[in-house]
Amino acid sequence: MESSDYKEEESFKMFEGYFKTFTMQSEAIGGKMKFGIYFPPSVVKDHEEDPSKKFKALWYLHGLTCFESLFFQKCPLGLKKAADLGLMMIFPDTSPRDAGIEGETDHWSFGVGAGYYVDATQEPWAKNYNMYSHVTKELRDLVEKHFNVDPAKQSICGHSVGGHGSLVIFQKNLDRYVSCSAFAPMTNSINSGWGKNAFEKLFGEDNLDQWKEYDACELAAVNKGKNLDILVDQGDKDCFYPDYLLTENFKKAGEENGHNFSINMREGYDHGFPFINTFIESHLEYHDKKLSQ
Amino acid sequence: MESSDYKEEESFKMFEGYFKTFTMQSEAIGGKMKFGIYFPPSVVKDHEEDPSKKFKALWYLHGLTCFESLFFQKCPLGLKKAADLGLMMIFPDTSPRDAGIEGETDHWSFGVGAGYYVDATQEPWAKNYNMYSHVTKELRDLVEKHFNVDPAKQSICGHSVGGHGSLVIFQKNLDRYVSCSAFAPMTNSINSGWGKNAFEKLFGEDNLDQWKEYDACELAAVNKGKNLDILVDQGDKDCFYPDYLLTENFKKAGEENGHNFSINMREGYDHGFPFINTFIESHLEYHDKKLSQ
Repeated sequence: MESSDYKEEESFKMFEGYFKTFTMQSEAIGGKMKFGIYFPPSVVKDHEEDPSKKFKALWYLHGLTCFESLFFQKCPLGLKKAADLGLMMIFPDTSPRDAGIEGETDHWSFGVGAGYYVDATQEPWAKNYNMYSHVTKELRDLVEKHFNVDPAKQSICGHSVGGHGSLVIFQKNLDRYVSCSAFAPMTNSINSGWGKNAFEKLFGEDNLDQWKEYDACELAAVNKGKNLDILVDQGDKDCFYPDYLLTENFKKAGEENGHNFSINMREGYDHGFPFINTFIESHLEYHDKKLSQ
Repeated sequence: MESSDYKEEESFKMFEGYFKTFTMQSEAIGGKMKFGIYFPPSVVKDHEEDPSKKFKALWYLHGLTCFESLFFQKCPLGLKKAADLGLMMIFPDTSPRDAGIEGETDHWSFGVGAGYYVDATQEPWAKNYNMYSHVTKELRDLVEKHFNVDPAKQSICGHSVGGHGSLVIFQKNLDRYVSCSAFAPMTNSINSGWGKNAFEKLFGEDNLDQWKEYDACELAAVNKGKNLDILVDQGDKDCFYPDYLLTENFKKAGEENGHNFSINMREGYDHGFPFINTFIESHLEYHDKKLSQ
């Protein structure tokens, strides 16, 4: 697979389908970006038979320090379920990789591997740290144009700061994503140590209005009365719970604003892939049901 | 979990059961060794209700460069199946880690991370490189004594050089393992570049009789007429196939010696975890059926 818009880098046959990584030249980021796609066997077959056919897809946003292939490496159980459901999965990277900004590799919770799925407004970050536009606009346009992803059949899921990404992107684009879920998401970025540290840099200390645009609790208030469905799983042995994730604030925001947030507390589970693996099938089933309605 | 024989290091809740890593003081290796165990939820529950109950278990031997936790990290789908089947899984490490022998870290295909599941006879390796005794005797004794593994209900599986380990250990201990399978195994170590390089060091250049004791094809001849069942999966896009694995030699050894070796060639699959993940459920079902007879 190749075009002037993207280049295939790696391909692995898995569950009779393929996980592939690609690079694209990104305008939003001002450089090369990687992304991954899992193609279920039924999608491969149907595409061969009818090249115009469109397919449903689930976006998955990784957390801090992660990259586009990590789910493929650590959660093949999710790809197995995607294969069974005939559900494409799309994996963006988590940040620019070659911006070359001073300080962007100083700490694992900000910068490279930690782009927070926002469009920065403050220099030196504003030129490159525009993961929101990358994910919701240019990469979305690309997969719709080149990989037959159905514009009307896309949902979004994420983990940790990627969970923040999925909660925010869904709530800012209710007409463009069918459903939303998250594993151990940072739910209230403007009050989380991770979010505060990042948003100070990306938006400036005083621009609280911009901070709020990327806060899942604030967006629940913006969407007051819309009765949004969102699925969240959270382990109670998660080392970042509750301080960085503030799950109870999101629960309260849902109750106060007339939403239907299902927040499942999972006894004994941690923050990582053992937790994600245990509940990934239920999230894929959740999205597939919504996408098939 | 702790006793004078072992120490629990890490514990992860997964699929309502637990993957745990442990360390033990190893006589065979002359130092500390790590190992991992997955405890399915039914095993945890049954053990609480009846501390004397014994459980079926599948041993999994990793390949070159791997370690006791890699399957847990890269193949949680296998642990999900083990959870569903109520089948414990036991993961030895792949070599001594602290022997301090000159040259043991020079190349990824020999030494640390690459112990070949043999008992070495040649110095300087013979003092520490005794993974065969470690796996088949002392670690087996330990899990039977402390983790209620049933002496009569154990099977063995492995990948690559770990597949060599499973084919060899099974064929040398037909009364102690119920069934055997392998993913992309090195099947004819005395004719493989990996095996020849390792066995020259571990046994000496001229001791071909000792080399043959750890060669799956030679052991198929030793067991002539016993009609052994062994399950093998092999990808045809495996970068080590056929030269290092010599799968056809094993097929021929099975045919010539009256065995029932099922060797499935898998079109388009590579040597790694995407391949293992795709077929791991069928291997666990194979063993569980044999263990439940």
